[in-house]
Amino acid sequence: DATSAAVAAAAAAAAVTPTQHQAAAAAASHAPSPASVNGSRKLVFTIDQDDPGPATPKIYVITPTYRRPEQVAELTRLAQTLMLVSNLHWLVVEDAVAPTRRVLAFLDSCSVPHTYLLGTASRRYKGANKPRGVSNRNAGLKWLKGHVKEGIIYFADDDNTYDYRIFQEIRATKQVSMFPVGLVTRLGVSSPIVSGGKLIGFYDGWIAGRKFPVDMAGFAVNVQFYLKRNAPMMPYNVGFEEDGFLKALKIKPEDIEPLADNCTKILVWHTRTVKSLPALKMPDSDKVTKTNLNHLKSQMVFQLPYGLS
Amino acid sequence: DATSAAVAAAAAAAAVTPTQHQAAAAAASHAPSPASVNGSRKLVFTIDQDDPGPATPKIYVITPTYRRPEQVAELTRLAQTLMLVSNLHWLVVEDAVAPTRRVLAFLDSCSVPHTYLLGTASRRYKGANKPRGVSNRNAGLKWLKGHVKEGIIYFADDDNTYDYRIFQEIRATKQVSMFPVGLVTRLGVSSPIVSGGKLIGFYDGWIAGRKFPVDMAGFAVNVQFYLKRNAPMMPYNVGFEEDGFLKALKIKPEDIEPLADNCTKILVWHTRTVKSLPALKMPDSDKVTKTNLNHLKSQMVFQLPYGLS
Repeated sequence: DATSAAVAAAAAAAAVTPTQHQAAAAAASHAPSPASVNGSRKLVFTIDQDDPGPATPKIYVITPTYRRPEQVAELTRLAQTLMLVSNLHWLVVEDAVAPTRRVLAFLDSCSVPHTYLLGTASRRYKGANKPRGVSNRNAGLKWLKGHVKEGIIYFADDDNTYDYRIFQEIRATKQVSMFPVGLVTRLGVSSPIVSGGKLIGFYDGWIAGRKFPVDMAGFAVNVQFYLKRNAPMMPYNVGFEEDGFLKALKIKPEDIEPLADNCTKILVWHTRTVKSLPALKMPDSDKVTKTNLNHLKSQMVFQLPYGLS
Repeated sequence: DATSAAVAAAAAAAAVTPTQHQAAAAAASHAPSPASVNGSRKLVFTIDQDDPGPATPKIYVITPTYRRPEQVAELTRLAQTLMLVSNLHWLVVEDAVAPTRRVLAFLDSCSVPHTYLLGTASRRYKGANKPRGVSNRNAGLKWLKGHVKEGIIYFADDDNTYDYRIFQEIRATKQVSMFPVGLVTRLGVSSPIVSGGKLIGFYDGWIAGRKFPVDMAGFAVNVQFYLKRNAPMMPYNVGFEEDGFLKALKIKPEDIEPLADNCTKILVWHTRTVKSLPALKMPDSDKVTKTNLNHLKSQMVFQLPYGLS
């Protein structure tokens, strides 16, 4: 049918080169403008309070994702937050060996300007106590290095919670900015300690000798600054990804820009979603094959090998 | 300071009568319109694809909530979905003995038109295997009965995930509508089975003799129809809340209106958020009391009795 054909075409495109959907162009305007794209019922608008002019830096949000039953739900929820922010480009980077039909179908109906990338982890980085999301984030960083000269980089996992107002804050980042992240460790928050507008330490439940004991969602980086520092990648070092990356940027703690009203507000939370088991196979009865249930199948994640996507 | 004073005032108001914030009036317009409310940086706009005229029924979303570390994160995420829907009123119903400062502060900066209510569960309904959220939902239903003559009722828990497009769908509900909910039981989805546009059965991992084996997030009810059926409450009967409520509405299965393109799309997911332990108390050092950390305290949930909210 038409849907499968569109998905197949998108998959083919993504395998060769990152897809940059038409929505990107349509949604890049600064004023809220509901619009019909390709005659579909797609809503295209972005808005934020800053109402930035064309000179305002674009925000590049790098989101690692991977196959699991709740994947599309998480992406949907994050996309709806990003819809509230103007001048933003979403890099959805999947750890998969080939583009997955379910994510491409989701992106096809997503009005946030975006690029889909593969960030496949090699086998040596799979399993317990291995770093997660590093291959994805590095694929996003490589894409930025090749395509972008200015803007703001932000790492946003798909299960976290973001108050859309944090994006207005990070747009001002000149080098590296930081801000509190709620629900991290038993301390309940991870935050720079700020006095007189300057960073004087870190409040975090796990220091471990890190120079920058911060959460992945707790900082943003200016693209020009990043490129000037030779565009480092994230290290494959569990628990030390942020620290290694920030150290490689050769920034001094005193140069860190505190955001969220001098780190007095929690606008980002490290939420985690309960993992669901993959669904049991649907029976082959007429009630499945000849009704709506047949259509629902394509939107679910089943036990492998049935659900090979 | 000013914030505490505002919260205290709001708490006093809420204790006497449900607060209906000014945002309600401001956001009731149908066109997207970023606006400043009371000179604050509040963003007030709502939008959806239907661009409904004034005759379009308002959607009343009833959301039960309760004290826990991730509460404000969840409400933030849900609010940002509701911001994408026009002509909607959010009933936030907390199971608490008095209005909580943290939720009132959240609502004060929330641009979704809303009413805050208390829906305190009596002690006999607390604990394992007791129904959860019933007192909240019934408080919402009672408020509707007293204040509203038409519109649509929808029960939306604060940890679930909603594609904003489901709200466009439920607006058309004449009596009772139903649609698939993802991530429910090992079957991975709970859905009416639809053939030829008519409901012919239910696909759900837990039937248990229910006439309507559906999830709380899987149906919507027209207010006029609800009132005509004498406005029943939800029963305090674990697992049978939906069934009891729908049976009391005296609707026949064949009269159920299937939505989401005849139940072929999953636009709602029963996601659950991993529970965080309450935060450990912050030390009383100067680094806490004389820095930004002092401000973060009010936004966190600590071990009782410290964090009594």
